[in-house]
Amino acid sequence: MGVLTLLTDFGTADYYVAAVKGVILAAAPQTTLVDVSHEVPAGDVATAAFLLAAVAPCFPRGTVHLAVVDPGVGSPRRLLAVATAEARFLAPDNGLLTPVFGAGCEIRAVTREDLFRPAPGATFHGRDRFAPIAAWLLCDGDFAALGPVIADPVRLPVFSPERLADRLVGRVVHVDRYGNMVTDIPAAWLPDRPCRARLGSHSTSRRVSHYEAIPAGDAAMLTGSLGTVELSARGEDLARRWNAQRGDAVVISWSPPSVPP
Amino acid sequence: MGVLTLLTDFGTADYYVAAVKGVILAAAPQTTLVDVSHEVPAGDVATAAFLLAAVAPCFPRGTVHLAVVDPGVGSPRRLLAVATAEARFLAPDNGLLTPVFGAGCEIRAVTREDLFRPAPGATFHGRDRFAPIAAWLLCDGDFAALGPVIADPVRLPVFSPERLADRLVGRVVHVDRYGNMVTDIPAAWLPDRPCRARLGSHSTSRRVSHYEAIPAGDAAMLTGSLGTVELSARGEDLARRWNAQRGDAVVISWSPPSVPP
Amino acid sequence: MGVLTLLTDFGTADYYVAAVKGVILAAAPQTTLVDVSHEVPAGDVATAAFLLAAVAPCFPRGTVHLAVVDPGVGSPRRLLAVATAEARFLAPDNGLLTPVFGAGCEIRAVTREDLFRPAPGATFHGRDRFAPIAAWLLCDGDFAALGPVIADPVRLPVFSPERLADRLVGRVVHVDRYGNMVTDIPAAWLPDRPCRARLGSHSTSRRVSHYEAIPAGDAAMLTGSLGTVELSARGEDLARRWNAQRGDAVVISWSPPSVPP
Repeated sequence: MGVLTLLTDFGTADYYVAAVKGVILAAAPQTTLVDVSHEVPAGDVATAAFLLAAVAPCFPRGTVHLAVVDPGVGSPRRLLAVATAEARFLAPDNGLLTPVFGAGCEIRAVTREDLFRPAPGATFHGRDRFAPIAAWLLCDGDFAALGPVIADPVRLPVFSPERLADRLVGRVVHVDRYGNMVTDIPAAWLPDRPCRARLGSHSTSRRVSHYEAIPAGDAAMLTGSLGTVELSARGEDLARRWNAQRGDAVVISWSPPSVPP
Repeated sequence: MGVLTLLTDFGTADYYVAAVKGVILAAAPQTTLVDVSHEVPAGDVATAAFLLAAVAPCFPRGTVHLAVVDPGVGSPRRLLAVATAEARFLAPDNGLLTPVFGAGCEIRAVTREDLFRPAPGATFHGRDRFAPIAAWLLCDGDFAALGPVIADPVRLPVFSPERLADRLVGRVVHVDRYGNMVTDIPAAWLPDRPCRARLGSHSTSRRVSHYEAIPAGDAAMLTGSLGTVELSARGEDLARRWNAQRGDAVVISWSPPSVPP
Repeated sequence: MGVLTLLTDFGTADYYVAAVKGVILAAAPQTTLVDVSHEVPAGDVATAAFLLAAVAPCFPRGTVHLAVVDPGVGSPRRLLAVATAEARFLAPDNGLLTPVFGAGCEIRAVTREDLFRPAPGATFHGRDRFAPIAAWLLCDGDFAALGPVIADPVRLPVFSPERLADRLVGRVVHVDRYGNMVTDIPAAWLPDRPCRARLGSHSTSRRVSHYEAIPAGDAAMLTGSLGTVELSARGEDLARRWNAQRGDAVVISWSPPSVPP
């Protein structure tokens, strides 16, 4: 029995998610299906990439992760299949799998048209192409038989946080339901001395271990669930209060140690 | 192991969907449960009928489809069970199953009160009546034993698109999350020559195979995932731009071939 | 194969729900996962308590119910495990399990840190602590080994409806998607004679068995799916029309029988 996760921008009001699941269950009836999210903003490949990278490590070895945020559906864009030591990933070649690319991963362009489902049009490759490929993998189909290895997948721009003598520079990579701002700055980089996090004209020098330790109306840095610095309030949407969004720069700075004259 | 799909207007903030699933799992623990949607607008039987018809063909043979959009719950309206060559369907007798009725299908009014769950009131037949009937079918209960065959189920009005010498006349049958307008006009009816699709005061003569081929700000006809004509834009909600909604008339017309004088 | 239900305030746009499921499936792959709701308003422990109490009786004996609405995550608040004759429950010690506490239930504070998942921070105990404990129970781990029995769990205030000579006094305990107001007044308490339900300046004396029996634009009392009085309209959101919300007082009164002079 295999596990398949599904991440899309299909929403939950249409029949699209269930159509993908039906095709998979018809061919791989023992599959355990898990929704990651279908609320990715329409066409927002970067959000999908973040969510997939965050969730994949929680799943059992061998899980198949299918991610369909695919504004280029029907165009010549390729379908990618990626294998790592831990999991297999399927997604359009639009950068969605950027966080997965790394040493030891195998990236293939799917060319097995014989696996595709006959389809009236070219608007729903989630159902007609990705679902049968996923089912193939879940039924122990040979990964290497999906298509040729490629070396030039589309990649999203990757921003790396900077660690300088008197400051850390990064950005907001996600704003969650609660208004917590997840940054890409490793919490392990935080200095032992007092420091201040700035986002636009807002800032805080408070550091806490958990949300409830933040005084009401205040803000704080804490170590988030991905091991990076998170900016949060208590029981309040800080991103809204600070008018912040994904991509905003975050700078955490401190005074240099005084040097004897 | 059987598959059960669940389509309702219950929303996802209440406990209603899970209550139905709990009752089914208590009696049929091996069932694979798949949500179609629970975001059908409250009481919108026609939307539920569209979604069910669109998704059912994707599921494995023998699937039980349970659809509960039931503003008449508790009234004398009947509970229907329908068997086709491919699947079984359960829904209130309010037209929801109209797209399923057809040659060779068997329509029964469920009268097996002994299967119903004891209930304090008459407001939640999804949990108290439909769920145990679904579990009965999933446990290989005899379909014919559910109740008598009937010939007079409630039917929604069915509109058929028209194919005329110089035009096709149909309507919008669904607006999806992206703002694509799905029509009931078969894409195979589109003429080989240039044509123009009109909806109210808006129109387009562009025909493309996929969304990304539509210039930004423009609109186009394409073959949608159900094989019918879809009206779409690229990365934009065309239904909003055109102020269109389900039921709106769509006319696709062309100039007749010039006749030699 | 066990059943796990999941009730949170995580929303469905983030990866949080799937992360919990991944951790559970990695350790207990045969688990059947059922979402109760993830749309609990952020931090709203009382709503979660209501939903959990309403849905748990529908599930098979032995089900593990995991409920994570946990504004105190990372603080010294305890993690509770509760066993009843029917089911096991896991939740933070913040009152969420109040409706479950009762005669014969066993309440333990989880102290098995060896079961916890290594974690970078203290913000996601759903993934890092509750999920592995749930998996432990689903894999037939010993409930009594989770930690010591405690007698002082945090309890939400419990309001009991009152049954007086000429009236019933209760409150709205839930407003559902349709705008039905679920009260805590047992429907069995309703008198045989005419009565009137009042909520603020609004009232109705109509009693019906089902929604469709309510005239359009009117309101009525009926027996809801939990056996309590529900105040509803037909095809309309009565809570919005009456401007009502959870906690509002509801009084149902009648004239005393005339006494012979």
